[in-house]
Amino acid sequence: MTLDAFTARYAARTAGMTASEIRALFAVASRPEVVSLAGGMPYTTALPLDAVGKLLAELLATRGAQALQYGSGQGDLQLRELICEVMALEGITASPDDVVVTVGSQQALDLVSRIFLDPGDIVLAEAPSYVGALGTFAGYQAEVRHVAMDADGLQPEALREAVRAAGGRAKFLYTIPNFHNPAGVSLSEPRRDEVLAICQEAGLLVLEDNPYGLLGFEGPPVRAIRASGGQDDVVYLGSFSKTFAPGLRVGWVLAPHAVREKLVLASEASVLCPPQLNQLAVVEYLTTQDWQGQVQVFRELYRERRDTMLDSLTQLMPAGTTWTHPTGGFYVWTTLPEGLDAKVMQPRAITARVAYVPGIGFYADGQGARELRLSYCFPEPDRIREGVRRLASVVEAELQLLDTFGPTTARTGSARVQTPAPDMA
Amino acid sequence: MTLDAFTARYAARTAGMTASEIRALFAVASRPEVVSLAGGMPYTTALPLDAVGKLLAELLATRGAQALQYGSGQGDLQLRELICEVMALEGITASPDDVVVTVGSQQALDLVSRIFLDPGDIVLAEAPSYVGALGTFAGYQAEVRHVAMDADGLQPEALREAVRAAGGRAKFLYTIPNFHNPAGVSLSEPRRDEVLAICQEAGLLVLEDNPYGLLGFEGPPVRAIRASGGQDDVVYLGSFSKTFAPGLRVGWVLAPHAVREKLVLASEASVLCPPQLNQLAVVEYLTTQDWQGQVQVFRELYRERRDTMLDSLTQLMPAGTTWTHPTGGFYVWTTLPEGLDAKVMQPRAITARVAYVPGIGFYADGQGARELRLSYCFPEPDRIREGVRRLASVVEAELQLLDTFGPTTARTGSARVQTPAPDMA
Repeated sequence: MTLDAFTARYAARTAGMTASEIRALFAVASRPEVVSLAGGMPYTTALPLDAVGKLLAELLATRGAQALQYGSGQGDLQLRELICEVMALEGITASPDDVVVTVGSQQALDLVSRIFLDPGDIVLAEAPSYVGALGTFAGYQAEVRHVAMDADGLQPEALREAVRAAGGRAKFLYTIPNFHNPAGVSLSEPRRDEVLAICQEAGLLVLEDNPYGLLGFEGPPVRAIRASGGQDDVVYLGSFSKTFAPGLRVGWVLAPHAVREKLVLASEASVLCPPQLNQLAVVEYLTTQDWQGQVQVFRELYRERRDTMLDSLTQLMPAGTTWTHPTGGFYVWTTLPEGLDAKVMQPRAITARVAYVPGIGFYADGQGARELRLSYCFPEPDRIREGVRRLASVVEAELQLLDTFGPTTARTGSARVQTPAPDMA
Repeated sequence: MTLDAFTARYAARTAGMTASEIRALFAVASRPEVVSLAGGMPYTTALPLDAVGKLLAELLATRGAQALQYGSGQGDLQLRELICEVMALEGITASPDDVVVTVGSQQALDLVSRIFLDPGDIVLAEAPSYVGALGTFAGYQAEVRHVAMDADGLQPEALREAVRAAGGRAKFLYTIPNFHNPAGVSLSEPRRDEVLAICQEAGLLVLEDNPYGLLGFEGPPVRAIRASGGQDDVVYLGSFSKTFAPGLRVGWVLAPHAVREKLVLASEASVLCPPQLNQLAVVEYLTTQDWQGQVQVFRELYRERRDTMLDSLTQLMPAGTTWTHPTGGFYVWTTLPEGLDAKVMQPRAITARVAYVPGIGFYADGQGARELRLSYCFPEPDRIREGVRRLASVVEAELQLLDTFGPTTARTGSARVQTPAPDMA
């Protein structure tokens, strides 16, 4: 039974587009009485808002007609030059000619998928992986095969096995090497070369998605995979959403030259050009403000929140619950005690006024029932502590129910896999 | 022979992505000594730039953390309410819940195509049609079938025949009813109902693309096709690029409810959300500035330039050249005397320091060799007159060559059809 009169007219790819149940819960989670550990929103309140406002007014006064005009499909040249300087902080040497400015990293994911993915192609991705990427790959009717991670990130041996099993049908490896969303781990330096070598040997592109790279809490940024001589083998995605502001939607892709040409054509067919106002605003911000000082402000702010979350988890969570220990970024990946189901538990958590994202949305294959994502980027520390306290009580109560009635999945049978849909958060 | 090492790895759809020759000429056409009648850039210099700058500074000061944050995939609610008020000017009654904010109208074209078009599907479109739409349809591997126009727009009889010939394979009719890009004509009011009825009867969606509707030079806006009770049969595309500023990339789509839901999911997979800063800037602009007064400024400015262009064409062009008489918008569609070829002539025009867009880019099927698009939106009137003067001399010279050596196409044989690519302009 369907109420959609257009069902018979949609393209084949549209059949897989269904809203995840996560979506409905976000509306509830945004109520002020709920502590949301679900969202991935940067703490934009910490930005120099008045300075940004003045910079915009100045931009309009000095080159307003240009800022409000169409721009080039590839993006503003000065911005692309500045992006190369930003990437140099992670060891990347690149030409502005090989950079394409995108409407956030999400558009870069879409464009790379559009260029490379035929229906039935395989994408290798970490287990778990970014929900927005999984949604995009699904939209291009690709099959995602997950590759196991541990505390040092992607496991090379598992990658080798996945490459072998894909038998030439894999188009690329999608990886978030730094402060993984949602897993909260990073790919160790020795493994970076190994992962690149495995993909090079198999003729497989590496799609390196790095929105959090400059938000590490310990020491200087780690070298990007792209920095290790992989200029023909790596497509690198960057973003100003976490180092500056997501509301501008300015991201970029650095690609081998031939791929870059296709990306520009695809982007023009997709949005004509990225917004000129936003691009010039980023240029002004990077050239007139202490943007690296601001990133340092964010790092310290997020480190404090990370500490609060890890301390609270240690103090409050029942035995049998485990979690990752991020050294940067926004997320802690948590595994519940055996027999619990994070999606089944979610309505009860909302009732207890705490929100998280259940783990199964971060897998294309139904894994992750016991797992969930907690974020510490947006709530103030005392709210994080209160949120973890509420979550711990819910887990305690679930464990008591489990003890009395048996496993939750058997109790409800509703842990059906949803096509992941991107969430703001 | 190919220099692209990735050729074997691209998706099937990527094969059709090649840059048009038009693209290379745009770099030349942007030199200051060239009068460009090629571009479609609004005259943003006429905007109240300081007021826009102040409004942005105020926005950052009052709700900067929100303006720089992620937003919803569907777009800001207040903006969607204001969009409904804008559409009401053209007789449309709509709910904000059925509106999706997009990154310019181009993203709306992409999303609608993504949802509806499988490879091999047919799209009906005017002859000629908007180059950016043709590029998007080609990217989804659809086949465009052109439907003839005359001075009153799309010909209903030709549409009926095209629907019949498509035999159920057509997914939608793509039409620009007002001040057509590139044809410079409008669909007459009696034909609007007829076109809608033909499509309704055939179970064919109408994709009504209306960026220029408020930029008419004669009387109030004409009723949109969507206004004629077609709420389940019309997907309507609107834009602030011509009434306000293209550098913001804020457009929208109004769709039947079930389609709207799919559009939001597709947009999230494509860009996560449209830029919040730009959306709130449009809200502030619409609510604090005399935006309709500004549209009136644009109307008068473009009318003067249209008059200059038509007068100049009448005074200067050799006999045998014909052109359309736009009553709004940006474009005059010109047909050269028999035996001439606008694409072959183009390098000579550039040499004579005048640029235009050859007609064949506006067709998916190689028509349009004698046709070209002239725009009057951006150059000042004296430059328009000078541009037409230069163009007339080039046509004169071509006619003399023709008289001496015969038709140009036979002379060069280079009028190969290019996959159209969107141009900024």
